[in-house]
Amino acid sequence: MSKHLTKRAVDYSKWYNELVVKADLAENSAVRGCMVIKPYGFAIWEKMQAELDRMFKETGHQNAYFPLFVPKSLFEAEEKNAEGFAKECAVVTHYRLQNDPEKEGKLRVDPEAKLEEELVVRPTSEAIIWNTYKGWIQSYRDLPLLINQWANVVRWEMRTRLFLRTAEFLWQEGHTAHATKSEAITEAKQMQDVYAEFAESFMAMPVVKGVKSDSERFAGAEDTYTIEALMQDGKALQAGTSHFLGQNFAEAFDVKFTSKEGKQEYVWATSWGVSTRLIGGLIMTHSDDNGLVLPPKLAPIQVVIVPIYKGEEQLEAISEKVNVLVKDLRKKGISVKFDNRDTFRPGAKFAEYELKGVPVRIAIGNRDLENGTLEIARRDTFEKQTINQEDVISYVENLLEDIQKNLFQKAIDYRKEYTTVVSDFKEFKKAIKKGGFVSAHWDGTEETEDRIKEYTKATIRCIPNDAKEEVGVCVLTGKPSSKRVLFAKAY
Amino acid sequence: MSKHLTKRAVDYSKWYNELVVKADLAENSAVRGCMVIKPYGFAIWEKMQAELDRMFKETGHQNAYFPLFVPKSLFEAEEKNAEGFAKECAVVTHYRLQNDPEKEGKLRVDPEAKLEEELVVRPTSEAIIWNTYKGWIQSYRDLPLLINQWANVVRWEMRTRLFLRTAEFLWQEGHTAHATKSEAITEAKQMQDVYAEFAESFMAMPVVKGVKSDSERFAGAEDTYTIEALMQDGKALQAGTSHFLGQNFAEAFDVKFTSKEGKQEYVWATSWGVSTRLIGGLIMTHSDDNGLVLPPKLAPIQVVIVPIYKGEEQLEAISEKVNVLVKDLRKKGISVKFDNRDTFRPGAKFAEYELKGVPVRIAIGNRDLENGTLEIARRDTFEKQTINQEDVISYVENLLEDIQKNLFQKAIDYRKEYTTVVSDFKEFKKAIKKGGFVSAHWDGTEETEDRIKEYTKATIRCIPNDAKEEVGVCVLTGKPSSKRVLFAKAY
Repeated sequence: MSKHLTKRAVDYSKWYNELVVKADLAENSAVRGCMVIKPYGFAIWEKMQAELDRMFKETGHQNAYFPLFVPKSLFEAEEKNAEGFAKECAVVTHYRLQNDPEKEGKLRVDPEAKLEEELVVRPTSEAIIWNTYKGWIQSYRDLPLLINQWANVVRWEMRTRLFLRTAEFLWQEGHTAHATKSEAITEAKQMQDVYAEFAESFMAMPVVKGVKSDSERFAGAEDTYTIEALMQDGKALQAGTSHFLGQNFAEAFDVKFTSKEGKQEYVWATSWGVSTRLIGGLIMTHSDDNGLVLPPKLAPIQVVIVPIYKGEEQLEAISEKVNVLVKDLRKKGISVKFDNRDTFRPGAKFAEYELKGVPVRIAIGNRDLENGTLEIARRDTFEKQTINQEDVISYVENLLEDIQKNLFQKAIDYRKEYTTVVSDFKEFKKAIKKGGFVSAHWDGTEETEDRIKEYTKATIRCIPNDAKEEVGVCVLTGKPSSKRVLFAKAY
Repeated sequence: MSKHLTKRAVDYSKWYNELVVKADLAENSAVRGCMVIKPYGFAIWEKMQAELDRMFKETGHQNAYFPLFVPKSLFEAEEKNAEGFAKECAVVTHYRLQNDPEKEGKLRVDPEAKLEEELVVRPTSEAIIWNTYKGWIQSYRDLPLLINQWANVVRWEMRTRLFLRTAEFLWQEGHTAHATKSEAITEAKQMQDVYAEFAESFMAMPVVKGVKSDSERFAGAEDTYTIEALMQDGKALQAGTSHFLGQNFAEAFDVKFTSKEGKQEYVWATSWGVSTRLIGGLIMTHSDDNGLVLPPKLAPIQVVIVPIYKGEEQLEAISEKVNVLVKDLRKKGISVKFDNRDTFRPGAKFAEYELKGVPVRIAIGNRDLENGTLEIARRDTFEKQTINQEDVISYVENLLEDIQKNLFQKAIDYRKEYTTVVSDFKEFKKAIKKGGFVSAHWDGTEETEDRIKEYTKATIRCIPNDAKEEVGVCVLTGKPSSKRVLFAKAY
């Protein structure tokens, strides 16, 4: 396998697939559509989890765990949700294998071990959770119920891509119950804000906050709030969604509470989730033809130190210096790796950490020891600087902050360049062909949405939260419209 | 549902089941044998995870994630492992539901969506992981490979009990690959030590470290190292196991490496795991007839503060004092809850936190404000103390340490009382009847083990690591034996 990646301009999709594998993030497994998340990729997910989990807890949520399986009958209870997911789920029908009487050494499903009721491997957990909430909620004192779950889910996707669309993926799903409609809506919007804050401050990935059109809405929801990011190839990525579920699940599972006034009422619900798909978004926001580029706040290794030496003695002298440096950097909360392997040359190490997106690389050689210097290179711009050893800690601290900011600003600039405001369908088609977000008036009908998709492959990503009321006409039908919506081709 | 628990002396098993539900730890779900882990129970698991994960990383391990499903053919590859797990697994045979043409609003398995090869929901991941390692290991430079996974697994148990034995459970599974046999054995033993250290220092649960007899060994292992704890009802609990797998999986999945000398060799393997079963062990080590008792190091809430007041004004004055106290305690890393709900009386709150095992309870009333005092009660001994407000921080810090130590010492004392050294089968039977560990000579045969189990229901828990060589005769057969082993009835 070549170390070089296909260039993005040549084949973006191929570049992505190669990068994920070569940077040791993930690979396909022996199970169709399921991935193996390798340690380096998983370390990014752990960093994401830690920040999100902290943010969820700061907003009053607690974690819990619900079963992997959903009995078919529960799955049927909420009609729209069942319709939305029934077509793509893994179904457990038996609970035992036995030795195959016809083929020695082989196993077969034991025909006597058929389940009375089939179990669906959760594609999402509303059904099993709301069936449980029925037992937890009696009175207004039990509300709000603010729960999150970190879990694996399975959706039997036919065309899969590492991180972006896999049969099994990891995610978190929040499921909350409230006494009033307005409180539930506030919660759903709050979680959209939490996701946006995480995407921008940690992933350095700008997002548009908005609400989904009817056809793009989550099955079973009354409103779906989304954050939409723009990838380097001009396609949008839905990065996280938060749903106001109304009373749909409360009605389907008969979850009522006694209000302060003593009345029996159905509770109001939300659910919200982000998944390992975010890693795909992270890659396609920042990385380049040389490999992964990671924002410092989510980089498993923020600084790598590579010694340049000939022979044991030089390595020892360098190591003595570096060990102190490593300690000092760690004291500042910076994650550092000192790569003193003698099985690889410095050049090979440089290439490896470039491919893996380590934000800062420090090289130190014999001459540096003599001069009291170090060479510091940043991954995002490839700039190199020789600095004095006594300045290294504050230099690195500032550099990490600077890289984080620079990546965000670059992504903001890119999005600005690739967001086009159009007034007719000719402009619309041209803008979609260029790539990126297209801001256009739309007459509000599903029919128009479908036709636009048919003509251009673009869909409505969202009606942005900050869309202004303005008088306009639909780009396709010329019918009146009061707000611009955001179109794009999407992952 | 009564707030009082069945007394342990009356029905230990009933007490356990009631405690788990009433203390809000877990409950049975709509899926046979699968539990819902409630927020309070899950918070304990999160504390356990955080400590274990830190210990794994300190010993050089990284986390990764492998698929939930294992194709049947991989499952067949390692014969003993397949035999050990095939009888109790969930099998996915189809990938789609469809509307049932015969029953409106119902779903059925789509007969056209049958998988070519059935997928087993992982009961453990050796097969899928070793099939993956084949691609990751070529040279001695790739070794050791030290990986851990936090995951859910499914074993189709017929008789389940919350935390102790459930169809789905959460666990971690370490899977490592090594160049030499001795390195793999050292790794397996190291993880046994890590588990023992965790059990004793954090769970305050003393354990015996030992090796399993042939019949109790993990399917596919050459040696199983175990930690065995003693529950309050005299039954043993296998709390964690670490397996030296020899080259069994490397051979089954053809995982070879080029040694430094340029030879092709099979790698050596270990695997090791602990699960949510530990929460069952925690409960049955410390709790009492009043409810849960938690060691401070794993308590989600270490200190609860309950205000005793009449009217808004008093509550305000108390809250002002308490808010400062909460801040100061948190600065020390102590997790505190100030329960100022006005929907419950102090007595009800006291009962709730007793049931939930919060280690330290602070009550503060109007008179305390006047006197500059507080009342501090400890959960483990029910002792109460009135102390001056200025002493509270250091008092609580010491108290938490003291409770942690006291719980461990009590458990050590209990185990000492319930460990009996016997020299003949009459004594053996008497000791097993009393309950606890029984240290006895055994002739080393599976046949004798089986007969002893048949007569007494006791099994060999382990051959303790610290068992001395001594001349003796088997309690059952009178045949020569050189070491005592530990018997007990077990969960």
